[in-house]
Amino acid sequence: MNIYDIAKLAGVSTATVSRVVNGSSKVSEHTRQKVLKVMEENHYTPNVFARGLGLDSMQIIGIICPDVSDNYMARAVSFLVRRLKEYGYDCILYCSGSGQKQKEEAVELIMRKRIDALVLVGSSYAGSGTEEDNTEYVRNAAEKVPVFLINGKIKGDNIYSVYNKDEEAAFQAVSALIESGRKRILFLTDAGTCSAMQKMAGYERALKEHGLPILGELKLHMDNRIHLVRDILLARKKPEYDSVFATEDGLAVGAVKCANAKGLEIPSDLSVIGYNNSEYSVCCEPELTTVDNKVERLCEITADNIMKVLKGESVLGEIPVDCVLVRRCTTDF
Amino acid sequence: MNIYDIAKLAGVSTATVSRVVNGSSKVSEHTRQKVLKVMEENHYTPNVFARGLGLDSMQIIGIICPDVSDNYMARAVSFLVRRLKEYGYDCILYCSGSGQKQKEEAVELIMRKRIDALVLVGSSYAGSGTEEDNTEYVRNAAEKVPVFLINGKIKGDNIYSVYNKDEEAAFQAVSALIESGRKRILFLTDAGTCSAMQKMAGYERALKEHGLPILGELKLHMDNRIHLVRDILLARKKPEYDSVFATEDGLAVGAVKCANAKGLEIPSDLSVIGYNNSEYSVCCEPELTTVDNKVERLCEITADNIMKVLKGESVLGEIPVDCVLVRRCTTDF
Repeated sequence: MNIYDIAKLAGVSTATVSRVVNGSSKVSEHTRQKVLKVMEENHYTPNVFARGLGLDSMQIIGIICPDVSDNYMARAVSFLVRRLKEYGYDCILYCSGSGQKQKEEAVELIMRKRIDALVLVGSSYAGSGTEEDNTEYVRNAAEKVPVFLINGKIKGDNIYSVYNKDEEAAFQAVSALIESGRKRILFLTDAGTCSAMQKMAGYERALKEHGLPILGELKLHMDNRIHLVRDILLARKKPEYDSVFATEDGLAVGAVKCANAKGLEIPSDLSVIGYNNSEYSVCCEPELTTVDNKVERLCEITADNIMKVLKGESVLGEIPVDCVLVRRCTTDF
Repeated sequence: MNIYDIAKLAGVSTATVSRVVNGSSKVSEHTRQKVLKVMEENHYTPNVFARGLGLDSMQIIGIICPDVSDNYMARAVSFLVRRLKEYGYDCILYCSGSGQKQKEEAVELIMRKRIDALVLVGSSYAGSGTEEDNTEYVRNAAEKVPVFLINGKIKGDNIYSVYNKDEEAAFQAVSALIESGRKRILFLTDAGTCSAMQKMAGYERALKEHGLPILGELKLHMDNRIHLVRDILLARKKPEYDSVFATEDGLAVGAVKCANAKGLEIPSDLSVIGYNNSEYSVCCEPELTTVDNKVERLCEITADNIMKVLKGESVLGEIPVDCVLVRRCTTDF
């Protein structure tokens, strides 16, 4: 009989059992009594010796991201692993892919491990922000362990979301393009994730507020591979565009490469803004103006919140983080 | 005192002791308490025997790399995690940093976990290839679990090395530069690792075999950060060089950026060859000629070998893998 069994029998999360054991005031009296009753009935004593042997906690955090070879996710996982290690926790890493079934399966599999908390890296796990049932598997996991989203937002008990203000960041970036004289702004994206939707919403709001039309032909969806993006854009005669706002730096680099191949002057003939402030943005020539979405800051908050939640301390369920536009050579404002 | 003593003293089987250690719910509370009491009285640490005897494997592989935000390591870890998952194994990931003490500590800590095998990603763990005692900690780990090196070579029981023929790849690349008319080839590196030493050896052999002098002023060591490399090279009047061979793509991109800033023509005024065939090499302008060191292939061999070794099958202790020079726009051969 361990903390997992107690949590299951009492119909609460292990975090709640932990709070009861630690005498946290965050647990309702009703829940407290329910947990204590189950513990008593099962002669469960969370004694020092048992905890010392690590029988209740293996001190392991589960991390799932779609693909750790992605630059953004690699930075996030690197930061998380090092930070959690400082706290004495190890990390089991899964790479799930981004399909709905793959994500559900990864969460289901990692929940069979004795993890203390689950971190989902990337907004892919928050669905598209519209279809409620897409994220049910995350809520199910949260019934067992606290779940932390990095750049995703899901409402629910035991779910803690840290995310960028992507709508606002996109609005600011696209507004800056418009105010520097651009009228036909190509929106490039590789995903239908919650974060990508937010960026598109910011793009559309900027157009609207500046009296420009929202045109379907100016929204393109393609894989985030530099040469692929370049070749697709090179092959198209239409639409014509005077600037690009991309939801990933790699897409923006593809657009820069297309312009270079066509002999266009950047930024006068074509302005480009990327997203992530990755190494690609300084590798590219000319160097990319891009939205810095502060991935390390999101991870820092998440790691610290994990420790607080595991100690039974109170933590905000939703923490938005501002982005910053980093101006380099692909824009003239 | 071993698992057999504990089992005997508690009057149970070794399998039962193992189940207690694993927190299995199949053991009655009475038995669990009895076993824990014996363990406590005898100051027993469960990890040691559970791992040593390979009882009740947790199906976990330990992976250590210096920093998973590094592009090469991110690709390696991504591939390993997905491949090992297919085999039913989970991965605990540590990011050790590259200092000797950091590496030793990371290996020591991960060896306390119940891992079935240890993978060390990056040639940093193989030392510089000269100082024998640098790698003693790896041999110590191999006394407990099989250890797999990705692009590193250490001789020893229970150690399996898969590595690139870096000396040969560097020799071929530098020979190609010389045969296309270059005489002063700058060697740029960021590391004193085994792999970096091999690349330097290949560089020197190519110079020698073509009758060119090996000059200390043409070997530079600096951090692998694009802007830093560019700025260091821009600030130097000497040495003069007509080409660059870099041990990492990021260093090569820095050299390209320096040439672009100086208004030099690439490849006629300056030829550049990088290493890794990372996304940086196609992000850069002009795109980088680079050595493809087949990281996915190394990881595939490693994952497959782990499974073979765990099944008791025989595996080669050393497997060298050929690199391929990918010609792009920074060379004219």
